[in-house]
Amino acid sequence: MPTAATLEALRAFVRERDWAQFHTPENLAKSISIEAAELLECFQWDADGDPASVRDELADVLTYCLLLADRLGLDADGIVLDKLAKTREKYPVDRAKGRSTKYDAL
Amino acid sequence: MPTAATLEALRAFVRERDWAQFHTPENLAKSISIEAAELLECFQWDADGDPASVRDELADVLTYCLLLADRLGLDADGIVLDKLAKTREKYPVDRAKGRSTKYDAL
Amino acid sequence: MPTAATLEALRAFVRERDWAQFHTPENLAKSISIEAAELLECFQWDADGDPASVRDELADVLTYCLLLADRLGLDADGIVLDKLAKTREKYPVDRAKGRSTKYDAL
Amino acid sequence: MPTAATLEALRAFVRERDWAQFHTPENLAKSISIEAAELLECFQWDADGDPASVRDELADVLTYCLLLADRLGLDADGIVLDKLAKTREKYPVDRAKGRSTKYDAL
Repeated sequence: MPTAATLEALRAFVRERDWAQFHTPENLAKSISIEAAELLECFQWDADGDPASVRDELADVLTYCLLLADRLGLDADGIVLDKLAKTREKYPVDRAKGRSTKYDAL
Repeated sequence: MPTAATLEALRAFVRERDWAQFHTPENLAKSISIEAAELLECFQWDADGDPASVRDELADVLTYCLLLADRLGLDADGIVLDKLAKTREKYPVDRAKGRSTKYDAL
Repeated sequence: MPTAATLEALRAFVRERDWAQFHTPENLAKSISIEAAELLECFQWDADGDPASVRDELADVLTYCLLLADRLGLDADGIVLDKLAKTREKYPVDRAKGRSTKYDAL
Repeated sequence: MPTAATLEALRAFVRERDWAQFHTPENLAKSISIEAAELLECFQWDADGDPASVRDELADVLTYCLLLADRLGLDADGIVLDKLAKTREKYPVDRAKGRSTKYDAL
């Protein structure tokens, strides 16, 4: 993830605009937070966000995540699976099942 | 994106813990903002985040994004590419090249 | 707002630690987002946050807001009241009453 | 903090629009994160935010913080000073001076 075609489309978009100069890891991290808040705004006053807006805002968060992963030479699928292995350890099924309690209070 | 194997691993993780009940779109949107801020914390006081922490926190943002996409029946690659088409329109190369100006001020 | 005593306590805290060097407006803005997300985390999975945690996290957001205002030579009360005057215009009572609709869709 | 006049202006603004129904602690916490990200957006691509925008966005964060404090019956000055006492303990001058290291790594 993403597919090679998606990754190439993102890279071409940035390259054509000469935007790599702005895409430092720090700026991309800020951008991810900014877009995440725009996604959250879909749910600011109620639990049902407008589907078209949610889709667009989620896409923006994902886009900046993929750009940061690419910038750092990371494979998105790989880091998700690596982290999932750690999270499995922190939340063993027998203690975490059916509970939203944080791991340090389980 | 993600690969079928990654998606299945995420789904199994949630299913085994009976956590789908907590994963409403609103709660996942909150979670994406929370994890995005933990990623940003890697860059709170300087431009160089610890690589291992950045990787883990980026993975957390991606994980919640993938869970939200899956919850909404969306294909992550698909929404990224759809949004990219819109963003290309908002930022034409001839006006946006080499500038970080927001589209409404281009 | 804050009282002169609170402001002086915040300034002394920073001065004693020689932390003004880290408190650029950009870093303080990042810090406000980071602390806002920790406050949000109190409500990640349900609507009732632990009161003691909410109080502490809200205090952290306020603290960084006051530090940023002070850094920029702004009076917190003054900017809140100035912005409130603008928001009153954007949300006239006759159209906004009892509705959470955003101003551009009112 | 805020002054009695500011607090009364905020309460009147909400009351006139019948908006207390939307201002649950959870919704206000989301709103604080959303506005904090708009403040961060002033610094998305560089370290110097437009002063007028920074002032307005900081005012928005403060406004929601004051509304949440009021909703919870908290005095903003009081919780800031209480938290400052805890933070002083976590960051003793002799170890924290001139360093941006997090307390758990000091």
